Amino acid sequence: MDTTAMIERALAQALEQARGSEAPPILNQALRYAVFPGGARIRPRLCLVVARACEPEPPPLAAAAAAAIELLHCASLVHDDLPCFDDAAVRRGRPSVHRAYGERIAVLVGDALIVLALQTLACARPAARLSRTLGIIGRAVAGPCGIVAGQAWECESEIDLASYQRAKTGALFAAAAAAGACAAGADDAGWFTLGERLGEAYQIADDIRDVLGDSGDIGKPTGRDRVLGRPNAVHRLGLQSAIERLEVLVAASLDAVPDCIGAAELKTHIRAEAHRLLPRALARPAA
Amino acid sequence: MDTTAMIERALAQALEQARGSEAPPILNQALRYAVFPGGARIRPRLCLVVARACEPEPPPLAAAAAAAIELLHCASLVHDDLPCFDDAAVRRGRPSVHRAYGERIAVLVGDALIVLALQTLACARPAARLSRTLGIIGRAVAGPCGIVAGQAWECESEIDLASYQRAKTGALFAAAAAAGACAAGADDAGWFTLGERLGEAYQIADDIRDVLGDSGDIGKPTGRDRVLGRPNAVHRLGLQSAIERLEVLVAASLDAVPDCIGAAELKTHIRAEAHRLLPRALARPAA
Repeated sequence: MDTTAMIERALAQALEQARGSEAPPILNQALRYAVFPGGARIRPRLCLVVARACEPEPPPLAAAAAAAIELLHCASLVHDDLPCFDDAAVRRGRPSVHRAYGERIAVLVGDALIVLALQTLACARPAARLSRTLGIIGRAVAGPCGIVAGQAWECESEIDLASYQRAKTGALFAAAAAAGACAAGADDAGWFTLGERLGEAYQIADDIRDVLGDSGDIGKPTGRDRVLGRPNAVHRLGLQSAIERLEVLVAASLDAVPDCIGAAELKTHIRAEAHRLLPRALARPAA
Repeated sequence: MDTTAMIERALAQALEQARGSEAPPILNQALRYAVFPGGARIRPRLCLVVARACEPEPPPLAAAAAAAIELLHCASLVHDDLPCFDDAAVRRGRPSVHRAYGERIAVLVGDALIVLALQTLACARPAARLSRTLGIIGRAVAGPCGIVAGQAWECESEIDLASYQRAKTGALFAAAAAAGACAAGADDAGWFTLGERLGEAYQIADDIRDVLGDSGDIGKPTGRDRVLGRPNAVHRLGLQSAIERLEVLVAASLDAVPDCIGAAELKTHIRAEAHRLLPRALARPAA
């Protein structure tokens, strides 16, 4: 089964945990709406390709970890879009969850996705790697440098910009790489750096697309960072330097791939993903 | 160590997972505020007394499961109090989290507590019981009859009242009993019924206190169910019948205690908790 199919199947299985004849129908519709159809699934793809780089036939825990990472990402998008945060009307090219289903359902969807993410790990084998994998993923969300802390920096009067960006984007990328390695039975310690660098690269690519992309291309309105007063690498460095920084980070990511049986394929994947992130936006300069 | 001290220590340990010099200070303050000082800690007490009834010296996973259950309960209170749900200004006798720290921090506190709850299970021994314990607790939150589904019934035009009440209160009580048994190495299957009956009894006691109690006594305003249009057993059955129903449920809970080494002490605990819930409110009839 190819990577995309494996991720979509694992996501569907995770959502099945919430379904049943006794379940409230609107919540279940909204859970599916928040997860399908997805975005680029870049984090779960990273998780699975790392798992395969460590072990060509990784166990079911690898796909479960990939699904968990993506569900946590989806949960963070649903809650970040709420009126009290970004008040985003559009996500992935259609109404955000709170616009489509109301604010109460959007809060509950985020809550349920967080639990379904971690719960889906519990069912996957080998159980002996569950504790460590759960710890890696849990810290990436609720640890001092996790994505919740990243979002909470927006509520502080003085922002530690490095902590903010590392936490808000880097944490889940780092966990995706480390959890993939851990699920596949490898030593996860060497894999965080790769994820952090890719996360930073992705953040810069996202900043570039926020400035240059058109909204049909990326599924959400552009220019939001300026409207919301959020840091953006293009505003800070200028476009050319932001692109150069992105190239440096992609090279650093390639350097950070630990020794493993599938290192060559993994590097090919990283180059392809980096290529996919950038040129489309750059081919359409700001009108 | 007594039950209360063990629960408070396990809760503090769970919150430690979010602390660190790089963490945003307001979020960390608000996390503590949402958990300490607590309410009656009735769910984690149930979890631990069941664990001890199965195994006099239960392993660390039992205290971790108790803390997880309480953190999930705290998360649900923080999110249920939000303006889009109950818009509650007061909780446990002081401003609710969103009134004290703002709505954005309240959303993030709930999210972090959910993750910290499940993450704290990952650190506790024996790891061999983690998968099953995590599954029990996860289903109680995000399953078709879990507390998120219970809350989501409030967003449906037609409510299935039995599903609503079983999910909104019963699910976490049932999981508290079953997770306690599971963490202690017992067969958990027989323990859900006890928790469900206690949950229903607690819901009726809460309904009675909503009608009869004064707000200083229970730490939140009374008469909220009528204001919010929520079902209340006293409105539905009348006070005397509600009290009789409560007594029937406590007796049914005692009957539902499975064979175990500490059954007698457990029944004593259940009688004491039931006594604690009711008379104080009944000693103060409606003015």
